[in-house]
Amino acid sequence: MQINALNTQYVAQISNQIDQKTKPLGALGQLETVASQLALIASNQQNKFADKIHISQVTALVFAGDHGINEAGVSIAPSAVTQQMVLNFIAGGAAINCFCRANDIHLKVIDCGMIAPIDNAIATASDNFYEQRLGCGTKNFAKQAAMTMTQVQQGLQYGAEIAQQQIDNGCNLLILGEMGIANTSSSSAIIAALTKTNAELCVGLGTGISEQQLILKKQLIAQALKRNASSDAMTVMQEFGGFEIVQMVGAILASAKAGIAVLIDGFIVSTAALLAKQLQPNVSDYLIFAHQSEEFAHQLVLEQFDAQPLLNLGLRLGEGTGAALALPLLRAASHFYNDMASFSQANVTV
Amino acid sequence: MQINALNTQYVAQISNQIDQKTKPLGALGQLETVASQLALIASNQQNKFADKIHISQVTALVFAGDHGINEAGVSIAPSAVTQQMVLNFIAGGAAINCFCRANDIHLKVIDCGMIAPIDNAIATASDNFYEQRLGCGTKNFAKQAAMTMTQVQQGLQYGAEIAQQQIDNGCNLLILGEMGIANTSSSSAIIAALTKTNAELCVGLGTGISEQQLILKKQLIAQALKRNASSDAMTVMQEFGGFEIVQMVGAILASAKAGIAVLIDGFIVSTAALLAKQLQPNVSDYLIFAHQSEEFAHQLVLEQFDAQPLLNLGLRLGEGTGAALALPLLRAASHFYNDMASFSQANVTV
Repeated sequence: MQINALNTQYVAQISNQIDQKTKPLGALGQLETVASQLALIASNQQNKFADKIHISQVTALVFAGDHGINEAGVSIAPSAVTQQMVLNFIAGGAAINCFCRANDIHLKVIDCGMIAPIDNAIATASDNFYEQRLGCGTKNFAKQAAMTMTQVQQGLQYGAEIAQQQIDNGCNLLILGEMGIANTSSSSAIIAALTKTNAELCVGLGTGISEQQLILKKQLIAQALKRNASSDAMTVMQEFGGFEIVQMVGAILASAKAGIAVLIDGFIVSTAALLAKQLQPNVSDYLIFAHQSEEFAHQLVLEQFDAQPLLNLGLRLGEGTGAALALPLLRAASHFYNDMASFSQANVTV
Repeated sequence: MQINALNTQYVAQISNQIDQKTKPLGALGQLETVASQLALIASNQQNKFADKIHISQVTALVFAGDHGINEAGVSIAPSAVTQQMVLNFIAGGAAINCFCRANDIHLKVIDCGMIAPIDNAIATASDNFYEQRLGCGTKNFAKQAAMTMTQVQQGLQYGAEIAQQQIDNGCNLLILGEMGIANTSSSSAIIAALTKTNAELCVGLGTGISEQQLILKKQLIAQALKRNASSDAMTVMQEFGGFEIVQMVGAILASAKAGIAVLIDGFIVSTAALLAKQLQPNVSDYLIFAHQSEEFAHQLVLEQFDAQPLLNLGLRLGEGTGAALALPLLRAASHFYNDMASFSQANVTV
């Protein structure tokens, strides 16, 4: 699979369309940047300058998985909470459900490999739940590789397939989210390995662990990193997991391949984006970063993309919540790009 | 008129409702702060703990006026652009129109005293335009008081009346915006006077003036401030204007009096909020700050409210655009407050 960089031949026309709008040059700040990027993606889809951006059907895929390293006590919650929250997603009671309802987003939940599958009756009755299990949680990566290379490859394929399925069904902007107790540990290890940064600087408080847990988390991750000095994305995924992260990498790659913009949530999803970027550098062209996570190392990832996220609300929840909250800004950007009058249309003195 | 502080007896119940939601404590960051404030306002409206927040009908009032000081060349645009943009608002072509359409906001435009009224046929044909003219633009406040005390009082009343009218018609959250070439000059002078800050620190680039214009703007404002050392809000409004700012002060006071939340846009609207706060300190309880303006002195105003705005997108447009863009965050906050499952409802392990 080869992901092409966006053809930039349309950039001048896009900038011109934005600069002719009835506002001082650049006065809409980051909203102009987002409109430009979405218009460039649209132009590439159509192979001609797009004077409209259509965000018609948005789907949030929330990938869930469990992490063997949680047996060491690196999170505030037991792994059982992953499945409990997935059931909460299916029942419509979680934050991501509320924000999807608020902002007209289709929500799909994927079991990528929780410790136990959910009850078959519930799974069958739900039309927004998918089983793409790679195992019963990853192995404890403090002790051994989180998964096999076969699982990595299968995960990439699963993620790509479900993204492609949404696109085939009319989705033209994808939101990714995740649920997985202890997955900030995976993310921190992945970031440390990919960016060759000291683990100390990549490990944070997650959803709110104690100082003592933080010390342990740092120790375990530093120790795991000694086992593997490679910064190759495939190896890094195999070593540190998790099942939900690998499937998100597949989903990001497939979306970019299909020429669809992906709205990236916080720390964990950004980590998946960084893995995808290592595999296919041009993937960056299709990514929009929704929010700045409270997790310190998120900044390290954002720097790799030279990205300035749209929101900075002190969120540290995951689930895709930051991305769901940022979506109205993308819709607003499309509205001004599509419909705002130019100086000449409105007879406004330049 | 006396505006009462919000009764805080409901705060514990509100915090409890938020903390029982299926998420780590505080994990929704500023969205939790906003939900708390909206729930406290709702509880005060109902005189009992409100377990729901209803944002049903939102109206953006955009107040327009002209500024005599623009004759000195302190803006990138001639004063005629104020009216041109008002016509653009009426025709639906401006950024604020796009964002109101995107986010389901009713838009009303008020001529508070542009240099010339708009064509009568257009005014009559439009159902979202109001004339509340205090004059044909303010006087040049570099030379003399911008308006009379009678105009100030009339402006406060006009602003209060149109806000009350919206509330009577079912609006339960108000957005304020403005249009007025050179009104950053008014705002800067008002902030300098109210906060007793050196003019040098209160004057910025507006929508993008040259370095030379900036020097002139600073000089003229410093000079005007010498004429009047008072920091009394009524005197400050009379001295520095503008007609649209005074009417926004009236609208803010009336909304708070009616117990309605007001979503404050950027630099100019925040200045009106600061004036309102000096007149009625409790008004702060009802204000939500939408975005951090690119105008440097906005930070000075925000500090007076100890406020952290929701968005920081590098906007410098006015019109209410930042507030219109932030509204979906308030709606999302109400969704999670109203509908998100608690730990016990969802059987999630605390």
